[in-house]
Amino acid sequence: MAAVKASGLVLSRPVTFVTSNAKKLEEVRTILGESIPFQSLKLDVPELQGEPEDISREKARLAAIEVGGPVLVEDTCLCFNALKGLPGPYIKWFLQKLGHEGLNNLLMAYKDKSAYALCAFSFMNGPDAEPITFLGKTPGKIVPARGPTDFGWDPIFQPDGYEQTYAEMPKEEKNKISHRYRALAQVKSHFTEAGYIFQPDS
Amino acid sequence: MAAVKASGLVLSRPVTFVTSNAKKLEEVRTILGESIPFQSLKLDVPELQGEPEDISREKARLAAIEVGGPVLVEDTCLCFNALKGLPGPYIKWFLQKLGHEGLNNLLMAYKDKSAYALCAFSFMNGPDAEPITFLGKTPGKIVPARGPTDFGWDPIFQPDGYEQTYAEMPKEEKNKISHRYRALAQVKSHFTEAGYIFQPDS
Repeated sequence: MAAVKASGLVLSRPVTFVTSNAKKLEEVRTILGESIPFQSLKLDVPELQGEPEDISREKARLAAIEVGGPVLVEDTCLCFNALKGLPGPYIKWFLQKLGHEGLNNLLMAYKDKSAYALCAFSFMNGPDAEPITFLGKTPGKIVPARGPTDFGWDPIFQPDGYEQTYAEMPKEEKNKISHRYRALAQVKSHFTEAGYIFQPDS
Repeated sequence: MAAVKASGLVLSRPVTFVTSNAKKLEEVRTILGESIPFQSLKLDVPELQGEPEDISREKARLAAIEVGGPVLVEDTCLCFNALKGLPGPYIKWFLQKLGHEGLNNLLMAYKDKSAYALCAFSFMNGPDAEPITFLGKTPGKIVPARGPTDFGWDPIFQPDGYEQTYAEMPKEEKNKISHRYRALAQVKSHFTEAGYIFQPDS
């Protein structure tokens, strides 16, 4: 047991998944299943500017300090190729202020409507660990909104190889190819391969 | 003296102006003159997402903790009216990735090319004080780049009432109407009216 402890693979507490979005939590639970003991927490972690991977790592650091234990944080970007990856990490604000039509309008000057959805998860086994980041990417294109409008920019993103937007796809179908699924699949593999042992402090 | 101290208007150290941009420091010195004892410091303060005023206040908090004394922080936004104020605080990344032409292209779908330059300064008299924020705003419009290209987005911003872009204007002319000038004028007034007393710790 001492050897395991030394390798840092002991989880002394369930992983806290930091989110304020019930829909995201639901998606994560569906994909992650029971492989990792985790709990969710609404936590007001400052959102930073910068490159997606850096934002994710820094968010994990801040969350781990706040929680004082293992954390998993998540960020989503919608990256337009003609705009060199922007709005990217700022998509939340662009969606909020411009709506679906406004997002399409950003590409008016360009023939290239291709885009990719990017999801970054960072796991940090407590405030003194190093964050480990997992990126999932789904290529597609930006289209005028189609489908239910209750989940962010899903109606304007049509993944490559599909005739439907994220919003139009059945949830099980979307979960198979989504950026979030792809990132979470890596999280799941990491946990399986690293062989974390859940060993609560008494 | 005790009364002054109680009102919190004593500056125990020169104000640290946090910046990593030599051009900005130069502009600030020109406008602020000798009214406030200040020094500048390159400091890597995380840049947050959010509304301009909130970003500025939070940056001041982080800087004041880091510096352990009075700080002045500055942020600049370029806000397109057709885009509901965006790119706003994210203009740095948009300029970096898209260039002047790309910024113009964002407005291709809109007749309304109006915009405003926004500058936010926050002053915080040490880590335990409340930040005070000063906003300066200059209205204008987004145009294809004209003039020297050595200072950010100056070539594509033409202030209302002028035939020249920021980049084409003589520096003294620009300093009279710029968003940074307008914010700094308020900083200066605040310091004059509040009557801060510079009383260094022995």
